[in-house]
Amino acid sequence: MRIKFLGTSSAVPTKDRGLPAILVKTMGDSILLDCGEGTQRQMIMAKESIMDIDKVVITHLHGDHFFGLFPMIQTLSILRKGSELTILGPRSLEPLLTSIMEGTGSKPGFKVNFIGIERSEMRLGNFTLEFFEVNHNGFETYGVKVKERDRPGEFDPRKADELGVPVFMRGFLQKGYSVKLPDGRIVNPGDVMGPPRRGSVLVYSSDTRPTESVIRASRDADLLIHEATYLDELKDRAESTGHSTALEAGEVASASGVKRLILTHFSARYSDEDLLKFREEASKAYNGEVLVAKDFLTVEI
Amino acid sequence: MRIKFLGTSSAVPTKDRGLPAILVKTMGDSILLDCGEGTQRQMIMAKESIMDIDKVVITHLHGDHFFGLFPMIQTLSILRKGSELTILGPRSLEPLLTSIMEGTGSKPGFKVNFIGIERSEMRLGNFTLEFFEVNHNGFETYGVKVKERDRPGEFDPRKADELGVPVFMRGFLQKGYSVKLPDGRIVNPGDVMGPPRRGSVLVYSSDTRPTESVIRASRDADLLIHEATYLDELKDRAESTGHSTALEAGEVASASGVKRLILTHFSARYSDEDLLKFREEASKAYNGEVLVAKDFLTVEI
Repeated sequence: MRIKFLGTSSAVPTKDRGLPAILVKTMGDSILLDCGEGTQRQMIMAKESIMDIDKVVITHLHGDHFFGLFPMIQTLSILRKGSELTILGPRSLEPLLTSIMEGTGSKPGFKVNFIGIERSEMRLGNFTLEFFEVNHNGFETYGVKVKERDRPGEFDPRKADELGVPVFMRGFLQKGYSVKLPDGRIVNPGDVMGPPRRGSVLVYSSDTRPTESVIRASRDADLLIHEATYLDELKDRAESTGHSTALEAGEVASASGVKRLILTHFSARYSDEDLLKFREEASKAYNGEVLVAKDFLTVEI
Repeated sequence: MRIKFLGTSSAVPTKDRGLPAILVKTMGDSILLDCGEGTQRQMIMAKESIMDIDKVVITHLHGDHFFGLFPMIQTLSILRKGSELTILGPRSLEPLLTSIMEGTGSKPGFKVNFIGIERSEMRLGNFTLEFFEVNHNGFETYGVKVKERDRPGEFDPRKADELGVPVFMRGFLQKGYSVKLPDGRIVNPGDVMGPPRRGSVLVYSSDTRPTESVIRASRDADLLIHEATYLDELKDRAESTGHSTALEAGEVASASGVKRLILTHFSARYSDEDLLKFREEASKAYNGEVLVAKDFLTVEI
C-alpha cells in the first residue's frame, strides 16, 4: 500500500501546504481520502494522474475536505474518463453534487456511483473500507480504515524442488490449487507456500477530538494517520473546534498500540519549523515511529 | 488600475497555470474577475491578501470560473473578515451558494451581498461595472467592463503662482471649489488645474466566440483581456466549444481599436513555448501591443 499526502494543511491552505487529500494506492486501486480545494492540481504536481482515481472518500462536509471534488469531476469529464467513479460520503453530499452539476449545466461523461456512508464494512475490489464515527464538534464525520485483502504466502521454489514438483504445475499451487504429481503424490499449496501474508491496514482519523472509535480501529493497523491541528498549548482551541493536539494524537496512537503514526492537518498558523515540535510532542505519549506529513510525502506500508 | 493574473489556464489547470481569476485593484477597491478552483492559494503565492477583496464577479457558471468561490468564502469566515463581500454573478449562482453554505453547515461571519447581473451599468465605489452578454455556446455568460471614475486634472503650481493664489487656498481649488483672493479676484479650479484625467477602462471578454458586444465595449478601453483558448489550427474546436482562437482575439481587438490586448484562458494542451505562437497569431490581425498572460503577470493601465 502506497500513501501519498496531497494536502497537509487544515481549513486554510498555505504557500507550501494544500487542503486535505491523501492518495492511497493498493493492489491496482487508487483511492482518494478527502478532496480539498486544489487536489487535482496537487496531483499534477505529484505526477499522479487523476484518471486513475477509482474511489473518493469524503469524510465530512466541511469545505476544506471536499471542495476539490466538483472541479475534479469536471476535469474528468473533459478528459473523458472512461470508467466509473465511486464517491463515498455523508448522505447529504449527494444532493449537493446534484445541484452543482445541474447549476453548472454539466453532466459527467462517465458513471458516478454515490454511496452514502454506513457505519459498516464495505468490500470494494481488493480492499475493504470500514467507516466509524468520530467526534468533530457534533458534525457528521467519519474516520476510515482501509484494509488490503490478505495475499497468498510466498512461493518457496526450494521446497517445490525437494518435492519434485514439475515447473508447469507450480502456477496452480501458487493460485491455491492442489496438484497430483506424475507418481501419484498429492501436493497442497501449503506444502510449497509460506503462510498467507496479511494485507496492509491503514486508519485515517479525519477531523476529530481524541476518540475511542479511532483507538479501536487502529489496534491491528500498520499506520494511523491522525489529525493534529494544534500543539498542546492550544488545547482549549482544539477542544472548542473539535480537533486534536499533537500530544493527543500521540496518546491515541499509544492507547491503540498501532505500529506507526503520521500527523497531518496542521493549522496554517504553524511554520515548517514549528512542525518539528509536533513530532516531539506526539513522541512524549507514543513510543513508535512518528512522522509529520508534508505535501507529497510518500510512505509504503 | 493594477491588474494581476491569478490563473491563466482554461478548463483544466496545469503545473504552471491555475484556473481563471484576475485581480483588479482600482482606487482603493479590490475586484476579483472570476474565481476558479485554487484562487485563494494563488493569492497567497502572489502575496495578495484575500481579506482585501471587496467584490467578486463571476462571469458564468462553468466550474473553472467559480469553484474557488465557496472555499474563499469559507476561509474569509475563518479569518473573520470584518467588512462585507459583494458577489456579482448570474442569478442562478445565489441558490447554489445557499445550498453549499447550508450543506457544509457554515455561515459566513460577514455580510455577503449577492447581486444578480443585469445587463446595465452598476456604480460601485470609485468605479462602474458594465456587463454585456457574450456568445459562449448559448450558456449564460457575461463580459465585463471596469471603468474607473475620472480623476480631477493635475494642479499647476506655476499658474497658481502667476495668479497670486495664497498657499492656504490651493487645497480648495484642487477639490473643485472656486476661491476669492484677498484682492477680490475670483479664481476657478479650471484656471489652475489641467483637464480632468480620464479613469482607466478595462474590458474582460470572459469565455466567448468573437462577438460584437466585446468589440463595442472595447472601443474606449485601455486594455482588452480576451480569451484565446486555441490557436487558429483548432478553429473548428473553438467554434464547437464556444471559444476563440488567438487570431480571432486579435481580430476583435483590431475591430474595436482598443489600445492594448492581453490573451488568456489557454487550453492545457499548450506548453509555454506554444504560447509564443499565440502572440504571433493575434499580431497578424492587430497592430497594437499584445501580451500573453501567465500566472502572476501584473500590468498597470
